[in-house]
Amino acid sequence: MFDHLRQHINSVISMSGSDFDKLANFFKPLHLKKKEFLHRQNEVCRHIAFVHKGCLRNYNIDSKGDEQIIYFAIEDWWVADLQSFFLQIPSQFNLQALEDCELLISTKKDFEQAFEVVPTFEKFYRLKTQTAYTKTQQTVVEKSETAEDRYLKLFKTSPSLLQRVPQHYLASYLGIKPQSLSRIRKKIFDSR
Amino acid sequence: MFDHLRQHINSVISMSGSDFDKLANFFKPLHLKKKEFLHRQNEVCRHIAFVHKGCLRNYNIDSKGDEQIIYFAIEDWWVADLQSFFLQIPSQFNLQALEDCELLISTKKDFEQAFEVVPTFEKFYRLKTQTAYTKTQQTVVEKSETAEDRYLKLFKTSPSLLQRVPQHYLASYLGIKPQSLSRIRKKIFDSR
Repeated sequence: MFDHLRQHINSVISMSGSDFDKLANFFKPLHLKKKEFLHRQNEVCRHIAFVHKGCLRNYNIDSKGDEQIIYFAIEDWWVADLQSFFLQIPSQFNLQALEDCELLISTKKDFEQAFEVVPTFEKFYRLKTQTAYTKTQQTVVEKSETAEDRYLKLFKTSPSLLQRVPQHYLASYLGIKPQSLSRIRKKIFDSR
Repeated sequence: MFDHLRQHINSVISMSGSDFDKLANFFKPLHLKKKEFLHRQNEVCRHIAFVHKGCLRNYNIDSKGDEQIIYFAIEDWWVADLQSFFLQIPSQFNLQALEDCELLISTKKDFEQAFEVVPTFEKFYRLKTQTAYTKTQQTVVEKSETAEDRYLKLFKTSPSLLQRVPQHYLASYLGIKPQSLSRIRKKIFDSR
């Protein structure tokens, strides 16, 4: 599990073996069973997690009680509600396992100490946050596109996700009813 | 203008005077007249900018030719299309001055060198990116709220923005017609 994290970090920046050994002390494994939560809405997000195995969904329940899925996370993703995690304030999001998950988790105190002890980790994390930020801006842009166009983009960029995520969650992510998603899928596959 | 940047950085982290002096070498002032662009869609974003004075809008034109405003930026904001800037690929966004603007700009090469020369600047920038990321996640959540609720939130969090941004741009940001925004404004002010 730690080997996976080491490879993941070294795919972004170069980190020496001794620096990684120091960094590893600030993480510990956590097994999350399907349907369990890393954190729930209105609770403080106590951990940031690197996904070694599994799939999770991050979602918000609005004032009308409707669920809105913000993102799905699979292997190599980092998950947390950063605002809640770093400011230790209640989260607006639920982070739930859609499959049995194996994570490497860190507390705020440990994660911030890791930046001090291993400065290259701060660079790595800055780059990952930057990517997450630009992807989220992309989500804002795509919100005005049709559900069919958004499905096609997912099909191109994350085909494995479409296999792993239950259809009703995909429909929720796209902001449409499951029946509409079935129609879109049928239309796309019929035209191929 | 540089004093403003120094104060801004020191409101987030503590940076020594000598470190700030080194950092300042990587920035230069740019005056942008109202309606001018820092970068346009399909061009590479060559500069990241700190807003000393002025107001800008970041927007995308979709395949149907419709404008979608992603955010407005005023004093103390950092603006750029980070994906385009760091990867030097064409941008999906236009960054346009809505007022005469005074900016401090930096190129990719200078900005990345600044991280090497002044490591505390990397920490500062990591924290700013984190905040921008969580604010954008918030925008995703708010996209499913009514235009009236979103206007009320802006009214609470950024009252000065509502005074400075032309109404038709505010309507575009909220994804509604200017007439609908007028109705929302009337309803809110009549009830006060």
